[in-house]
Amino acid sequence: MNKPHYLNEFDNITLVNQSRWQLVTVRTCYQDIVFKPSLTMNCTCDFILPTQDGWNKHYDNCKTIWKHDKYEYPKNKDGSIQLPNKHLSKLDCDILYHLGFDTAKHDLPAIFGDVKFVCMGGTKYRMKDVAAHMSQLLNIPCDFNNMVKQAHRYVMYKVGPVLCVNHGIGIPSMTVVLEEVLKMLFYAKAKDPIFFRLGTSGGMGISAGSVVISSWGMNGTLEKIYDLPILGKTKTFPAIFDQRLNQELYSIASHEDFSTYVGGTMAANDFYRGEGRTDGAFCDYTESDKMDFLQTLVGLGVKNLEMEATAFAAITKEAGLRAADLCVTFLDRLLGDQVTPDAQTLSQWQKRPAIIVGKYIEAYYNTKK
Amino acid sequence: MNKPHYLNEFDNITLVNQSRWQLVTVRTCYQDIVFKPSLTMNCTCDFILPTQDGWNKHYDNCKTIWKHDKYEYPKNKDGSIQLPNKHLSKLDCDILYHLGFDTAKHDLPAIFGDVKFVCMGGTKYRMKDVAAHMSQLLNIPCDFNNMVKQAHRYVMYKVGPVLCVNHGIGIPSMTVVLEEVLKMLFYAKAKDPIFFRLGTSGGMGISAGSVVISSWGMNGTLEKIYDLPILGKTKTFPAIFDQRLNQELYSIASHEDFSTYVGGTMAANDFYRGEGRTDGAFCDYTESDKMDFLQTLVGLGVKNLEMEATAFAAITKEAGLRAADLCVTFLDRLLGDQVTPDAQTLSQWQKRPAIIVGKYIEAYYNTKK
Repeated sequence: MNKPHYLNEFDNITLVNQSRWQLVTVRTCYQDIVFKPSLTMNCTCDFILPTQDGWNKHYDNCKTIWKHDKYEYPKNKDGSIQLPNKHLSKLDCDILYHLGFDTAKHDLPAIFGDVKFVCMGGTKYRMKDVAAHMSQLLNIPCDFNNMVKQAHRYVMYKVGPVLCVNHGIGIPSMTVVLEEVLKMLFYAKAKDPIFFRLGTSGGMGISAGSVVISSWGMNGTLEKIYDLPILGKTKTFPAIFDQRLNQELYSIASHEDFSTYVGGTMAANDFYRGEGRTDGAFCDYTESDKMDFLQTLVGLGVKNLEMEATAFAAITKEAGLRAADLCVTFLDRLLGDQVTPDAQTLSQWQKRPAIIVGKYIEAYYNTKK
Repeated sequence: MNKPHYLNEFDNITLVNQSRWQLVTVRTCYQDIVFKPSLTMNCTCDFILPTQDGWNKHYDNCKTIWKHDKYEYPKNKDGSIQLPNKHLSKLDCDILYHLGFDTAKHDLPAIFGDVKFVCMGGTKYRMKDVAAHMSQLLNIPCDFNNMVKQAHRYVMYKVGPVLCVNHGIGIPSMTVVLEEVLKMLFYAKAKDPIFFRLGTSGGMGISAGSVVISSWGMNGTLEKIYDLPILGKTKTFPAIFDQRLNQELYSIASHEDFSTYVGGTMAANDFYRGEGRTDGAFCDYTESDKMDFLQTLVGLGVKNLEMEATAFAAITKEAGLRAADLCVTFLDRLLGDQVTPDAQTLSQWQKRPAIIVGKYIEAYYNTKK
């Protein structure tokens, strides 16, 4: 069976081959790579922007870098997902409980086979706004009927190749729906889907209203990992995002009239003490303790605090997929703990990650023309 | 300032005095306690059922057992909450961000001052059903308008003294709203509120459709604790529920036509591998590994698996409040991983925790007559 695949400090990577398609772009970025034409793998680096000086060469999940001594390639040749779970093939019918779909009653390839982009975020309202934005941008109608209403847990809207799904607050709520969407796209045979998390967060030393694109997630004990107890023992997954995808998003964002940063993100399991706030129900540390902690985070490269980044990086990487986490900041935590702007301002700010992702999707399709 | 207070194996307890009210009941349960009449504390054991042989004598949060060498009493004399956070008194206005209330614009004592019971559960639909059940049972009208709609995160309905609030899936989602409800009731000066979680879960060796009342929560590494990283260091909280409250709920449940158990609950941070399922997106263990793990849980006294019990026990105890976690089981995990009953059956089953809690609330008010 397949095992998880990573590209980061946890693994050694072997670069093995060149691209089959988007040859111009890929040639540019491969110029200093030694080809090994005897290998027959095809690159899946569907870059949307030409490589510039200082840019990373690959997406983490490109076939050319996933060829690895220890692991098999995690996707099929057509780009559809190979989930690393041999038990799934034994199921006559797989019930995706929190989505309300099952593989017997629903023709998942017919409904979701064309999905290329998955946009996730906390609230159902924000994800409806994202769907409306994509509908307008791509000129594709959306009926705004919640496709997973019957399961009573989440919302899902489909705008052509863009799926918009909410995930609630925190890692457990997010991984439930993320894993079921991965299974859904696995059954649907969707090709090389790219996942975006469009969130809200607290910023660190940057103006409220800025967007942070996460280079990595850090947990509450200051490690760039996602820890998950499995059968009683904790398994550790790296929580590093794809550097090339972030560079492309950052490049696109640079044309907007708000500030965007690429940097580290702390994913806390608690909004109050977990993020070092002093305004929760409980607090036994001083304002000075808090500021020392926040300054430690700044020193480690943390640009914002939210509640999902580690697991979002880890789980998408485990599935061999590109993913990025873009959060607008609602406050500068170095200046205070409470979210004080009025609802209208917050509502405007929280559109910003979708503006960047929308332009990425537009650029993707313009590249394909 | 106040510090957290626990009654369980983590602390030594000093019994100090007798009851001020409900004297008959309290006398019965206090018969073997040496009184120290020089102390002037008043008991807050508002038991609803007479003590029977083998029953625990106190609620964990009774004043008579909270008098402690290390800690101050966590509530005011009138039963209103004293939250252990000295920073709150410095706030001119406290914004309860995920509820959409603030202490400047909203008259919280007028709106929530009479709250005695808080019912929490995962989905907004279930909590609306719970509100409808309480409305019918107590003959108190409810307008079913979501009181926290403007915050776009949760739902809240009020039926007289009963507040019904959803919390989403998993501990981070639950603690966000739980901590804000605690602050809300703190500002509202609500008296001795009792918290119930009415959930769904996977059972362990018991019929699907049974209800489990959690005696404790256990985390994914098999400890009866809730671990929370605070300022970079993990703090450990005990996750033990109130034995007396559980006994009363169990006694009430014994008259129903479904089975109810009191037992341990594992709270996982992941629905699939975290609960030892083999039907998630990822799985690298065998069916035999899974069954060994589930049998280990059975041996430890685990009756069901869900995703919130540890933090729900820990946080309510930290606030010095009574709380219980009642979950119906949707499957027997020793027989499989997938939730297979039809929607109508699941809908009927998930009313069962509310039936028990409703009878408890009825009994509470009958006792007070």
